[in-house]
Amino acid sequence: MNIALLPGDGIGPEVIAQAVKVVRAVGKKFGHTINFEEAPVGAAAIDQTGNPYPDTTHEVCLRADAVLFGAIGDPKYDNDPKAKVRPEQGLLEMRKKLGLFANVRPTFTFPSLIHKSPLKLERVEGVDFVFFRELTGGIYFGEPRGRNEQGTKAFDTNVYTKEEITRLARMGFEAAQKRRKLLTCVDKANVLATSRLWRETVQELAPEYPDVKVEYEFVDAVAMRLIQWPKAYDVLITENLFGDILTDEASVISGSMGLMPSASVGTENKLFEPIHGSYPQAAGKDIANPLATVLSAAMMFEYAFDMKAEAQAISDVVNKSLAEGIVTEDIAEGAKAYKTSEVGDWLA
Amino acid sequence: MNIALLPGDGIGPEVIAQAVKVVRAVGKKFGHTINFEEAPVGAAAIDQTGNPYPDTTHEVCLRADAVLFGAIGDPKYDNDPKAKVRPEQGLLEMRKKLGLFANVRPTFTFPSLIHKSPLKLERVEGVDFVFFRELTGGIYFGEPRGRNEQGTKAFDTNVYTKEEITRLARMGFEAAQKRRKLLTCVDKANVLATSRLWRETVQELAPEYPDVKVEYEFVDAVAMRLIQWPKAYDVLITENLFGDILTDEASVISGSMGLMPSASVGTENKLFEPIHGSYPQAAGKDIANPLATVLSAAMMFEYAFDMKAEAQAISDVVNKSLAEGIVTEDIAEGAKAYKTSEVGDWLA
Ligand SMILES: CC(C)[C@H](C(=O)O)[C@@H](O)C(=O)O
Ligand SMILES: CC(C)[C@H](C(=O)O)[C@@H](O)C(=O)O
Repeated sequence: MNIALLPGDGIGPEVIAQAVKVVRAVGKKFGHTINFEEAPVGAAAIDQTGNPYPDTTHEVCLRADAVLFGAIGDPKYDNDPKAKVRPEQGLLEMRKKLGLFANVRPTFTFPSLIHKSPLKLERVEGVDFVFFRELTGGIYFGEPRGRNEQGTKAFDTNVYTKEEITRLARMGFEAAQKRRKLLTCVDKANVLATSRLWRETVQELAPEYPDVKVEYEFVDAVAMRLIQWPKAYDVLITENLFGDILTDEASVISGSMGLMPSASVGTENKLFEPIHGSYPQAAGKDIANPLATVLSAAMMFEYAFDMKAEAQAISDVVNKSLAEGIVTEDIAEGAKAYKTSEVGDWLA
Repeated sequence: MNIALLPGDGIGPEVIAQAVKVVRAVGKKFGHTINFEEAPVGAAAIDQTGNPYPDTTHEVCLRADAVLFGAIGDPKYDNDPKAKVRPEQGLLEMRKKLGLFANVRPTFTFPSLIHKSPLKLERVEGVDFVFFRELTGGIYFGEPRGRNEQGTKAFDTNVYTKEEITRLARMGFEAAQKRRKLLTCVDKANVLATSRLWRETVQELAPEYPDVKVEYEFVDAVAMRLIQWPKAYDVLITENLFGDILTDEASVISGSMGLMPSASVGTENKLFEPIHGSYPQAAGKDIANPLATVLSAAMMFEYAFDMKAEAQAISDVVNKSLAEGIVTEDIAEGAKAYKTSEVGDWLA
């Protein structure tokens, strides 16, 4: 098994290091030979090469069976609207070049952390839904984009083809069939031409999945209902930008944002990453919570290698660490807090 | 005082009727002559004229000193992506033609309703912020938009000029000066060219308002923080689409969505409306909560006519109705529920 490691920026390297310990331990226990190849991405790659997603990094990803990714982003670029190269460009280029068209973001709860949710217990108990966010299209990539000559006017283009919508929607339908059989198509069809194509395409596909109930909701309504009654959802499909906003909104409702993994998948390649960001304030302090990255490694075993026992072994040890309080300060709650590296060692 | 009444669809006519009773009562008490002129908009206008914002309705608005608006939207159009005329087009055309470039959406709490918030009490107690959403630009209006010839590809254009951003941002800066002096610029500057122009423009204006602290946050981060720690915000400015999503998200956190008013203002015209929608399931049943529309009328007295005592009289009677339980079923909580029309009569 060849795994590409892209630690990226901020706390990325620290959390990836813990996932590596755990993956190695799983390899040893289950008798797999696992090779890691590390490559820079994001601000780290700009510092080294001037390019946030260097060709050499892309080759490492192509060679690998799966990519384990940390996080990207450095505040030194955020307040400089004129910066020529940006770490996030690396992330977008990577998604595009690897064809990772679907970002799979589950939201579920951990009984021991649910009291940390900003929502009342009765609203969030038992929440279990998954977003399929389209990841290589929409306004993130549409052309033309830029400024007029004088720089006084800026524009972006949102664009979707039926094909892009279809392949993402099918993943959502199939996931719904294996779950509670409810698919919510999230769009803004009362305003956007792209959203009307989304809705139309999903309506055309629906008869092929007669066991799945399909609902159509506007993005603004979903932004409300995710907080009011998150249990109403099972599988949600949406475009890139709406997905960006709504999956982040969703990530805080469970109270366990530091534990939420994600997968970005395409036809050829698969990438796994924690949903939290690069959290620059915590970088280098050995305090970041590695569990989301470790659980992303579990997703990797399941979805990239179809190794369910290995994935389960990781989930089990994460649950054990929660039960025994071997956790970082963000979830230690007054009890002893362990360092990022200590949690990794213990899990491994 | 000439007030245009645009009841619109669903529960719109019922809630507007109560606001009219209250405005008449205020006129009588304070000795103002108030003329109302009613005109159709939305699905109601399509049914009558084929056009969701007829020219005659526009003329009524132009003649008026202020517009009181109900709600727009009818489910019969929602699942028909190919419908040629849509009620929402009327709303968008109205905003554009009346030049209502700023949508002002306060979020605050009512002590007697705060327990209805989906958020825990300590998160939501004392929340008090206001969104300034740009309302006549961005992807709602940008050209080109539509489909390719075969209909297999759809596109929308997001576009902003420095001028559009400046006039909205100045309103935000000025509001912040009168409040807690914190302005949050919400964008997606790590991805969108339009967002980089927003950030750059706000950065250029900031030195003119040295007493205002300006923060820049990505839209996905704000979607999270609005739930995690809504008290952190004071004034937020953002583009049309982000504002649509975030103001709706914000509207549920106070637990009193049925009470939240809003204003849409431009250089020449001013429109006031409840933030809730047309709620078609409740239409015609005399059960809709009229308080948000009544409080929108209070905003009208304050912002369109600079009549603070009149506005205060309305707020006071609304608070009294809450204290005495003269409320509709959505907030009656087991106690006797009053009809929409009964609440209006009582308030008047
Ligand atoms: C960093 C940024 C470009 C990225 C996105 O908007 O896709 C991030 O927010 C995410 O969701 O992975
Ligand atoms: C009905 C729709 C077009 C409208 C919008 O998106 O602006 C509504 O959601 C609103 O926020 O007033």
